Amino acid sequence: MLVVDGPSGNGIGKAIASVLGCEFSECMHNLFPDGESEVGLASAVKGKDVLLVQSTYPLQDKRLMELLLLADDTKREGARSISAAVPYLAYARQDKRYDEKGNAVSINTILSMLSFSGITTLVTVAPHNAESLSTFNGRVIIVDAMAPLAEEVKKNVSDPFVLAPDKGALNMATRFAKALGCGYTNIEKHRNKLTGELNILNAPKADFKGKTVVIIDDMISTGGTIVQTSKFAYENGAKEVVVAAAHLLMAGNAYERITGAGVKELYGTNTIPYNRAHMVDISGAIAKALPSASPKQHSK
Amino acid sequence: MLVVDGPSGNGIGKAIASVLGCEFSECMHNLFPDGESEVGLASAVKGKDVLLVQSTYPLQDKRLMELLLLADDTKREGARSISAAVPYLAYARQDKRYDEKGNAVSINTILSMLSFSGITTLVTVAPHNAESLSTFNGRVIIVDAMAPLAEEVKKNVSDPFVLAPDKGALNMATRFAKALGCGYTNIEKHRNKLTGELNILNAPKADFKGKTVVIIDDMISTGGTIVQTSKFAYENGAKEVVVAAAHLLMAGNAYERITGAGVKELYGTNTIPYNRAHMVDISGAIAKALPSASPKQHSK
Repeated sequence: MLVVDGPSGNGIGKAIASVLGCEFSECMHNLFPDGESEVGLASAVKGKDVLLVQSTYPLQDKRLMELLLLADDTKREGARSISAAVPYLAYARQDKRYDEKGNAVSINTILSMLSFSGITTLVTVAPHNAESLSTFNGRVIIVDAMAPLAEEVKKNVSDPFVLAPDKGALNMATRFAKALGCGYTNIEKHRNKLTGELNILNAPKADFKGKTVVIIDDMISTGGTIVQTSKFAYENGAKEVVVAAAHLLMAGNAYERITGAGVKELYGTNTIPYNRAHMVDISGAIAKALPSASPKQHSK
Repeated sequence: MLVVDGPSGNGIGKAIASVLGCEFSECMHNLFPDGESEVGLASAVKGKDVLLVQSTYPLQDKRLMELLLLADDTKREGARSISAAVPYLAYARQDKRYDEKGNAVSINTILSMLSFSGITTLVTVAPHNAESLSTFNGRVIIVDAMAPLAEEVKKNVSDPFVLAPDKGALNMATRFAKALGCGYTNIEKHRNKLTGELNILNAPKADFKGKTVVIIDDMISTGGTIVQTSKFAYENGAKEVVVAAAHLLMAGNAYERITGAGVKELYGTNTIPYNRAHMVDISGAIAKALPSASPKQHSK
C-alpha cells in the first residue's frame, strides 16, 4: 500500500505509513495567487493500492476539492484501488432535509462525489451521525476517538465524572467512562427551532461534588452546547469542568465562550489541528482500523 | 425552462429569465458559522428543464461546491434536464500536465464532476482555452465577451487601437477591433519558466501615436501581463492605455500594479463583480447563446 498525505493530511498519513511499514509520499501542492489549488501525485500509483489522507476542516470546500482532484488523478493514473482517510469529514451534519426549507442533503452529494472520484473505502473519525454515511457506495470504516481521548484525560484528571450533553452522545460517554473507570450520565437539551436557544429539559440527579466533570462530544463548533452543559455541571457541584471532543472546529469565538463558562482544559484530536487544546494523535487508531493493516514486524 | 440563480449567480439568471420570458427562482442559501455552505432549491423542479446559474470566481472551491450541491439536488428531485451557466469557470487554466511536476489536470476533474452531478449542457464565457473543455461529457456553449465589451469601450474611447498581449489573444483582438472599426496588432511574450519573468520577444512595428491603446485579454489575474503590455504601448507612443477583459480576477494588488503602469480605465463583465471597473452585463449574450432561447415576443 502507498499512503499519500494530502495538503491537509497534517502528517497523519506519514504516521499511518510508519505504523504499517508501507510506502509513503507527500503530495505536490501549490496555491495560485487567485486562490486555486493545484495538487498532484509525487509518486507513481499505477497498479498500487493507494490510501489518500486528507482532513476537511475549514476551508472545507477547498480541502474537499483537493481530495477530489487527488483521487480523480489517482484513478486516472491507474491505481489498483483507492481508499481515503478523511479524519474530519465536512458536511456530515447536513444529513436531513428539513420541511420548512428546501435544503440539499449535502452529505449525500459529497459521498457520491468521493465515490465517483474512485474512492471505494472511506475511513473517518467520529462522524456526527454514522447513519448519514450509509449512502456511500463502498466500504465505510469509522474510527472511535473516545479511547485515545480518554487515555490522555486519564493522565491529567484524578477524579473524573463523564457528562454527555445530550442523549445522542450517551454511547460515547459510556465508552469514555469505561476507559476512565468512572461514572457518567447525560442531560437532555432542547433547541428552539426559531431562536436557536438551547434549554435543558431533563436533568439527571447527578451529584458532581468534588469531581472534575469531563464533558464529551463528537465536535465543538460554536461552543453553545458546551457553554450550557458546563454551567449545568457547576450548578450541580462540579469542582471543575474540562471538555474532550474528537473535532475542535472552534468557529468564531468558541474558545472565549467555553472558557468564559468555566471550562478549564480542552482535549481534542489532530483531525483538526488546534493549538489551544491538548492534541491527541489519532493516526494509530486509524492505522489499526484499516482493513489491510499488517503491522510492521520487528526483525528478530 | 426554470432558471435558478445560485449563491453567486449575481442576478445573471434573473436577467436571463427576463430576456427569455421564463420561470425564475432564487436558490436557498445559508452559511453556517463553521464555514459550510447550505444550498437548496426554492421551487419545484420535477419534470422541468432547469438552468442553474453560478459563477465560480474566488472562493472558487466554495462556489464550485455550491454548484455541485445544487445540481445534484436538482437531479435527485427529478428535473428533466440540467444546464449550467458558469459565467466564470474556475480551474480552466489547469488544463495541462507539466513534465517537471506531477500536477493533476484539474479542469478534467471539474468537468467530470459537473457531468456526474447531472449537468448535460455547460455554458461559459470566454474560457482561457476552449479546447480544455472538450473532455466535458455533454454540450459546451461558449459565449463571447468581446462584442459586449467593445460596445461599452466604443462609448468612451474615440481613437482606439487594439493590442493583444500575446498571440493567443489575437482572435479576440480581431473581433474586438472589428466591433470598434479600428486597427489591431499583438505582441509576443516569453515567460521564463524558472523566474516567471515576462519578456517581450517580438514587437510589431506599431505606431500608437495619438491613439488610446485598448489592451484586451480573457482575464486579469495578478496583472503581470497587462503591466508589461501597457509599458510597451506607452514606449511606442500611446496617448493613453485602457484595458478590457472578460474576467477581472484582480488577485492581490493587481489594480495598483496595472494603474501604476499607466492603465487609465478598466472594463470587465459581471462574470466577476468588480466595482473599480466599467461593468458590462453579460446576461443578454448568455441568453442569446442558449439552445432553448425563444425570446419573449412583444405583444402586438
